[in-house]
Amino acid sequence: MPNEPQSGKTEPRVVSKWGHERRLEFIDWRLRWEGRINRGDLTAFFGISVPQASLDIARYIELAPDNARYDRSNKVYVASETFEALYPGTTPERYLNELLARCAGVLQPELGFSGWTPPMDMPANLARGVDSRTLLTLLFAIRNAKRVDVSYQSMSAAKPEERQISPHALGYDGFRWHVRAYCHSRGSYRDFVIARVLHASPTQVNALSADADAAWHRRVDLVIGPNPVLSPGAKRVIELDYAMQAGRVTISCRQALLFYTLKRLGLLPGQEAPPEVQQLALINRDDVQAFLPHAT
Amino acid sequence: MPNEPQSGKTEPRVVSKWGHERRLEFIDWRLRWEGRINRGDLTAFFGISVPQASLDIARYIELAPDNARYDRSNKVYVASETFEALYPGTTPERYLNELLARCAGVLQPELGFSGWTPPMDMPANLARGVDSRTLLTLLFAIRNAKRVDVSYQSMSAAKPEERQISPHALGYDGFRWHVRAYCHSRGSYRDFVIARVLHASPTQVNALSADADAAWHRRVDLVIGPNPVLSPGAKRVIELDYAMQAGRVTISCRQALLFYTLKRLGLLPGQEAPPEVQQLALINRDDVQAFLPHAT
Repeated sequence: MPNEPQSGKTEPRVVSKWGHERRLEFIDWRLRWEGRINRGDLTAFFGISVPQASLDIARYIELAPDNARYDRSNKVYVASETFEALYPGTTPERYLNELLARCAGVLQPELGFSGWTPPMDMPANLARGVDSRTLLTLLFAIRNAKRVDVSYQSMSAAKPEERQISPHALGYDGFRWHVRAYCHSRGSYRDFVIARVLHASPTQVNALSADADAAWHRRVDLVIGPNPVLSPGAKRVIELDYAMQAGRVTISCRQALLFYTLKRLGLLPGQEAPPEVQQLALINRDDVQAFLPHAT
Repeated sequence: MPNEPQSGKTEPRVVSKWGHERRLEFIDWRLRWEGRINRGDLTAFFGISVPQASLDIARYIELAPDNARYDRSNKVYVASETFEALYPGTTPERYLNELLARCAGVLQPELGFSGWTPPMDMPANLARGVDSRTLLTLLFAIRNAKRVDVSYQSMSAAKPEERQISPHALGYDGFRWHVRAYCHSRGSYRDFVIARVLHASPTQVNALSADADAAWHRRVDLVIGPNPVLSPGAKRVIELDYAMQAGRVTISCRQALLFYTLKRLGLLPGQEAPPEVQQLALINRDDVQAFLPHAT
């Protein structure tokens, strides 16, 4: 099979993906987040044999002898007081991100390492589905660097307009998906909300490259601090919430996502709210302002 | 091994988790989103043998004979024009959610089904890590229904205060994690931002149950429409963006998350912005208002 040279040779990589190493990471995760692991957890999750599960646990103990002790009466390994995670992936961030992903329906529960998760919830989303044919046309065009003819309903036009675009990336503003593309009709790189693409036709015309999309490639630093009108005590709490150092924290975003990022933080020009709602302020607004579109 | 009765009996479930059915779903995903599948894709992803991959593809074709045709010259199965997804999971929503999860670092890329994904980005997050010992203490207390003694720095107090809480769930407001708990010091269910928990000590005292947490269990419907000050054309575009029917869409949220949900949508009392930024309005504000805390 000349076209599938990888079939025989990829097995070592695969073994590391689903195999031994992943089972050791699973042991590490369960000990850290649930405080215990036994052979049954491994056989149930991976479908491996009991002897294989014993070997995996023995190997883990060999690598991290101080992380667990065997509780003979309950036939279970219990995390020790001095447990130190062996795998960098088992951080609080990853644990909480896994909860988020489960809650949002992104992660099938059976793919996560957790045997138990707490009840949890987050603000409801106001999203719409995108048309799968449109999405596919855009994806194939990005992948193959081809232009797409779209019928697009913009906010500024009364009726849908025909445009030819060279799409090169997808963007998500927190609510809506858009495609980042060069618009050959307007002569500039723009965002096209996918839901406003009423029709998309593939073409065989080569796309304009993304290299010249300066706003996509340029990064802007946002220096964020507590809202200055808050009391000194309240400011210190906000600093605690966001791990600010010396009253500020810096995040970096693409210029092409600056509008959405500031909007999400309530920091766009014209966005106003009482300080108990708007707890953050943009410290370097003068520097950032120049990177916003002139007309929003 | 009386404490691990599941070890021998769970294998059938496990087979369905990592086995045959998941490989058929993988074939369905690759055909839908990448337009092609061959044996090499299966052997590389699952570490199975070439004959097993052939059997899997044959089985898929048996179940969905019109979904793919074999391209002999390229030795690859190509999705047909009339392709219909066999698995409900292979929807545009799931595809886009998988992109989000990869972008946010929630999903390890090798766990996703996609062989290729487009460049993509979203607004930078302003999150802080939470202390892992505090998180563990809260998780164990939720799981075992025990109270926790915390030292908590609230916005309203000058110094941290000692409180005993009965935690029962985690919440995420879009930026910060909090624990939902009954506060025995204040006599009510409240949100405690985890970053403001300066110290947490487990206790052996049984927790108060979550049953009486009315604001957690009660759901509030939000009826959302386009901002009425927008032009008729712009309103129609916003209706398109969010798949509104007759100018409105309804989302449901827990009362305990209402403040965060409205804040995220820019719809809290006192939040203001120009219409090109604030494109949405809360149609049933009078009904919703009663469910907001009196003092925010």
